[in-house]
Amino acid sequence: MSVHMDQLSWVDYERRIGEGAVVFLPCGATEQHGPHLPLGTDALLASAISAEVAARVGGLVAPALSYGYKSQPKCGGGQHFCGTTSLDGATLSALVRDAVREFHRHGVRRLVLVLGHYENQWFVAEGIQLALRDLGPNAGLEVMRLEHWDFCREQTLTDVFPDGFPGFALEHAAVIETSLMLHFHPQLVALEKIPDDAPADFPPYDMYPTRTEWVPPSGVLSSAKGSSAAKGQRLAEDIVDGIAAAVCKEFAL
Amino acid sequence: MSVHMDQLSWVDYERRIGEGAVVFLPCGATEQHGPHLPLGTDALLASAISAEVAARVGGLVAPALSYGYKSQPKCGGGQHFCGTTSLDGATLSALVRDAVREFHRHGVRRLVLVLGHYENQWFVAEGIQLALRDLGPNAGLEVMRLEHWDFCREQTLTDVFPDGFPGFALEHAAVIETSLMLHFHPQLVALEKIPDDAPADFPPYDMYPTRTEWVPPSGVLSSAKGSSAAKGQRLAEDIVDGIAAAVCKEFAL
Amino acid sequence: MSVHMDQLSWVDYERRIGEGAVVFLPCGATEQHGPHLPLGTDALLASAISAEVAARVGGLVAPALSYGYKSQPKCGGGQHFCGTTSLDGATLSALVRDAVREFHRHGVRRLVLVLGHYENQWFVAEGIQLALRDLGPNAGLEVMRLEHWDFCREQTLTDVFPDGFPGFALEHAAVIETSLMLHFHPQLVALEKIPDDAPADFPPYDMYPTRTEWVPPSGVLSSAKGSSAAKGQRLAEDIVDGIAAAVCKEFAL
Amino acid sequence: MSVHMDQLSWVDYERRIGEGAVVFLPCGATEQHGPHLPLGTDALLASAISAEVAARVGGLVAPALSYGYKSQPKCGGGQHFCGTTSLDGATLSALVRDAVREFHRHGVRRLVLVLGHYENQWFVAEGIQLALRDLGPNAGLEVMRLEHWDFCREQTLTDVFPDGFPGFALEHAAVIETSLMLHFHPQLVALEKIPDDAPADFPPYDMYPTRTEWVPPSGVLSSAKGSSAAKGQRLAEDIVDGIAAAVCKEFAL
Amino acid sequence: MSVHMDQLSWVDYERRIGEGAVVFLPCGATEQHGPHLPLGTDALLASAISAEVAARVGGLVAPALSYGYKSQPKCGGGQHFCGTTSLDGATLSALVRDAVREFHRHGVRRLVLVLGHYENQWFVAEGIQLALRDLGPNAGLEVMRLEHWDFCREQTLTDVFPDGFPGFALEHAAVIETSLMLHFHPQLVALEKIPDDAPADFPPYDMYPTRTEWVPPSGVLSSAKGSSAAKGQRLAEDIVDGIAAAVCKEFAL
Amino acid sequence: MSVHMDQLSWVDYERRIGEGAVVFLPCGATEQHGPHLPLGTDALLASAISAEVAARVGGLVAPALSYGYKSQPKCGGGQHFCGTTSLDGATLSALVRDAVREFHRHGVRRLVLVLGHYENQWFVAEGIQLALRDLGPNAGLEVMRLEHWDFCREQTLTDVFPDGFPGFALEHAAVIETSLMLHFHPQLVALEKIPDDAPADFPPYDMYPTRTEWVPPSGVLSSAKGSSAAKGQRLAEDIVDGIAAAVCKEFAL
Repeated sequence: MSVHMDQLSWVDYERRIGEGAVVFLPCGATEQHGPHLPLGTDALLASAISAEVAARVGGLVAPALSYGYKSQPKCGGGQHFCGTTSLDGATLSALVRDAVREFHRHGVRRLVLVLGHYENQWFVAEGIQLALRDLGPNAGLEVMRLEHWDFCREQTLTDVFPDGFPGFALEHAAVIETSLMLHFHPQLVALEKIPDDAPADFPPYDMYPTRTEWVPPSGVLSSAKGSSAAKGQRLAEDIVDGIAAAVCKEFAL
Repeated sequence: MSVHMDQLSWVDYERRIGEGAVVFLPCGATEQHGPHLPLGTDALLASAISAEVAARVGGLVAPALSYGYKSQPKCGGGQHFCGTTSLDGATLSALVRDAVREFHRHGVRRLVLVLGHYENQWFVAEGIQLALRDLGPNAGLEVMRLEHWDFCREQTLTDVFPDGFPGFALEHAAVIETSLMLHFHPQLVALEKIPDDAPADFPPYDMYPTRTEWVPPSGVLSSAKGSSAAKGQRLAEDIVDGIAAAVCKEFAL
Repeated sequence: MSVHMDQLSWVDYERRIGEGAVVFLPCGATEQHGPHLPLGTDALLASAISAEVAARVGGLVAPALSYGYKSQPKCGGGQHFCGTTSLDGATLSALVRDAVREFHRHGVRRLVLVLGHYENQWFVAEGIQLALRDLGPNAGLEVMRLEHWDFCREQTLTDVFPDGFPGFALEHAAVIETSLMLHFHPQLVALEKIPDDAPADFPPYDMYPTRTEWVPPSGVLSSAKGSSAAKGQRLAEDIVDGIAAAVCKEFAL
Repeated sequence: MSVHMDQLSWVDYERRIGEGAVVFLPCGATEQHGPHLPLGTDALLASAISAEVAARVGGLVAPALSYGYKSQPKCGGGQHFCGTTSLDGATLSALVRDAVREFHRHGVRRLVLVLGHYENQWFVAEGIQLALRDLGPNAGLEVMRLEHWDFCREQTLTDVFPDGFPGFALEHAAVIETSLMLHFHPQLVALEKIPDDAPADFPPYDMYPTRTEWVPPSGVLSSAKGSSAAKGQRLAEDIVDGIAAAVCKEFAL
Repeated sequence: MSVHMDQLSWVDYERRIGEGAVVFLPCGATEQHGPHLPLGTDALLASAISAEVAARVGGLVAPALSYGYKSQPKCGGGQHFCGTTSLDGATLSALVRDAVREFHRHGVRRLVLVLGHYENQWFVAEGIQLALRDLGPNAGLEVMRLEHWDFCREQTLTDVFPDGFPGFALEHAAVIETSLMLHFHPQLVALEKIPDDAPADFPPYDMYPTRTEWVPPSGVLSSAKGSSAAKGQRLAEDIVDGIAAAVCKEFAL
Repeated sequence: MSVHMDQLSWVDYERRIGEGAVVFLPCGATEQHGPHLPLGTDALLASAISAEVAARVGGLVAPALSYGYKSQPKCGGGQHFCGTTSLDGATLSALVRDAVREFHRHGVRRLVLVLGHYENQWFVAEGIQLALRDLGPNAGLEVMRLEHWDFCREQTLTDVFPDGFPGFALEHAAVIETSLMLHFHPQLVALEKIPDDAPADFPPYDMYPTRTEWVPPSGVLSSAKGSSAAKGQRLAEDIVDGIAAAVCKEFAL
């Protein structure tokens, strides 16, 4: 039986929830990821990872939020790119608030929001907090919120980046996301189009309107050269293992 | 090349938009569709239809809105079903408003919102109207909004319903949706689980809180018996032909 | 004693509510209704019908909501007409939400929202649902929502439209509304100004911005020729009888 | 021809607006006014006064806003009275914002908001300001906002209150409103029910939740004894004359 | 130990709240106050007064709200002045709503909102009411709301204004505020810059957009001539005594 | 002349803005900072730093936003601490949006938001972006947004943390903030109350409701031992130098 909620009938879903299934809600974006990765990268990765974890822990994956918060220059290139399709913060928070309330109504008691888009985190957190406030102190619902890349092990990062890990900040459309896509969705990666730009170098402040000249025209913040499916597999293992372990620990599965 | 926006790089997407591609935004729901159809039926159908039309007219399909407005007893069974996962009206309108504004920023000038969930229509319409007000009178963006089943031809309905067409109102999880799913996603249909309930019989008014006893416990408003992939194919042809023709006419393609 | 809440002192109103009076809230609009009917038609009819039903069942009529949701081309002509004065969806939902909450505070336990404007229905429904969510599961308030024309009997429609009923969709400022106005407010009808346009013929989709050329310049979607006070009286009887019966049944009066 | 917008066809309304008619929007409330005055007093008076001024200056009266901002103990008795039916501040501001924007779309260039409910003033002012911000600096729309009782002349107040004018603060359901109602709607006044309470005596601060014991149980803040239709006529003359003069001066009629 | 909440550690604050300390929240503005008073006058005075009262009654002063509702011509000069920095009504209400909810979470049971800006009052009142609605009927929180100048004694006003008190309406940047600033913050007053304009003379209605010619170009609505630190001290004594007495009475300290 | 906007008259402020003064808006919080630092730490530091930079570059400091976004366990301890007084995300964004719009109206063309509270960043960024969208593409306003600690130089951190820098994540109420407070506001620091807890150790995900047992009961996320005024001075020099240099560079002063 599918782990994908949208492929189940309500009767099957109800039964699974009654049995205590953890629900995973992937929170992605529609955002430029350079010339070599597709616009849907964030939702595709969050969904693929959610599905693997769900299979591991007997959970279900709700339909992904395919649109996310506004892309910022330093972590996603910024809102001046064509194709990047973003929501106002209040819209994203409302979406999460409504969804959390509905899962609660279904009887879900363990919910995991799997973020694949860095910019989502605060507005998703706000949505969760608002829903829990609405539901009151005895709701009996526990929510985990995570960004999947935070589960990469130190050693893996050392191995994946033999010249040193540049930090998650610049890892937009770079080695981690490209390798994960080569692992999960190889047919959607155009390796030959990886640009050869130097990594972006941002000052310790932001300017509005966006100083577009700060951002590489390709939208890639540090090079994706050196990405591979093998690296993707290893990163995916870290991430899936890590999230599964966290879910089992926190939800006492 | 894919018609799916989320599978394209921003560079490819930008080129296609620059060439005048029409963008289709499927607006679905996560909603009970009886014991024989999956919760994602509305988004799955709206997406499949959008993809076929897009392929026909050289357009692109944006990621579907997978959550829709609250299910109402008379057209979707109501909010008391487990699995039905709905948004407040203001959330859905905001989602559409943000998306329309973003497509406009991309340079999209022809946008089609393909609704697969009846309850969405007014809040989607409001979102479009709010976005166009934001964009001002010279935005140069034209938006078409439609429910796909309205493109079924009279003769087709006569043939599909030899005992008489009960009307779209009761066609929730019934012959049209089931047949379309058998055509597009047969592996997600459990024909053997189609309930044998009599059609629902609603009075000409609504009651809040929902009178749940008005709604068949299965969530199916009229029987899906008699559904077939062949009927689905014929309905799909009507719908795809009809939308494609409408798009070509209104956008002078 | 008056059925009109705004003509009662709070002391009398409180007594009536304490006795279990049903409250009727007419939800109208300020919207073009062709050259022969006044802008206030929707609120005037909803109020007149509410008053007759209230008199029948010992209820009270709250002041009408005189402004409604945005007029749509296919059911009200659209927002390009001078005089049509509409609210954003969120405003109308908030208005209803606030009002329902207040009636609940008064001790009202049976509330009927009588809609005279087709475009109101979803935003009014949302307002009711939001208020009931605010009030919690033990509010003890039941709300009926209806459009008055849905209570016209089949036979009456057959008789009123000897050449066939064109459907409620095109019945804006046409025979039903004109006849009802001739019955309730004859001095506000200018029969000699009824235009002689052919009925509007809309495609199965909407376009934004409004294709104003789809809409007859008069604002009348199908001809009002053949309207009469006698037809209005018969329609009014159907409607008042039907609503009164529904109220008695659902509220166990 | 009627001064009431809701009694005019859109064609007649459009012609009148094209000729430069001033539009008056009465902003009332549904609020307790003691045992002797009806709940609709504020809207009824604002509408009646608007109609007289409109007749004088060739203007039109839009349908009244029948619900207003929350009643406060010191000026309207407070929200604990049955029958008082109030809006959140944001709802009232949104209502006014939407209405002002619509009148602007009609071509109205001179708009007067006539307030009959003290508590409305700031939320109505906010609604006007928000609408004008939306419309931009070249909207060409001028809006006057007023409370009708501020046009009572000094000498009139001296004569109407031989024992001294207690101030507008306590004039809720008292001599001014009662006399005006006796002038405009005598059949809705129950003189024999005027309570004989001493005037309310409020401290220079507010307490929330409402200290209901501060408010006379009748809801009348100072006695309505001494009210008469003659006084009402004289007050009405002041008010109508004053508003008409203000409108002519400010709008250069 | 400081009366200022922002100077206490959370441990000390918690202890004080546990002991029943009243919390004072000054609600000011950033608004023109003529050429002789600083932009922060309203927050500075509300804070200074709050601190004196808090010291008197063993209370604490929360950080002031430094931005307030939009300045209106008749009481603050209007929004056309440079330096006046105002919030939308909904923003101010939300700010107060959030703050009241948080103080309640801390265990605060006695809260006083001390307004130093006339235009704040309705939006602050709305924020309090919304918070109390959120908190439900058993919150156990009582909130006092006041404008400090309302505690000036009759006799004091007679003495301070030997030529007659012009009323609080015109007392913007005039004798009361200037004298209070001379008492509390003499170094921030530029007595030599007090303009010599005649008092403003406003009609009994408002016009939008602002008729800026109604407002003295200095922003001072009536002359501040005659202000003195001695008058300020006497006014401050009235105000501090009066608020302290009110607090003790209403909160049974 | 003061750098503090609230101490200037509008006339002086207008002159300074006309001369091109940069405006700094400190964005703080009211949040627990352990037993040794005051609740106002974030606003106090952001204000003090803003004042020094403003003095350096001829700018002005607007009144601080004293309340910020909800404290999160990993960076501020969480919302379960008494004294932490936070805003909903939408409230903070609205506050910033309104303020930015107002500064634009004043003629400000260079605005710097100086954040002293980590949790503020996304909601402040959203507020800026919303305001700039409101103002349109030709507003001529440039906004810098920064967290002050990001300007600490590498070498300084090495020297300040001889045992290794634990990262900004755990630097809540720890060495950096304590040292900066010892430099700017020594009288508000209770060195003897610094707790001796081990640093917090958080997993790579968040749980809602807050797992309060993850957070040291003192609210200090890593030890403040080793803080000193000398370290604070050095950090302050880095920060003030860095921001001043950034401002001069980006605004071409």
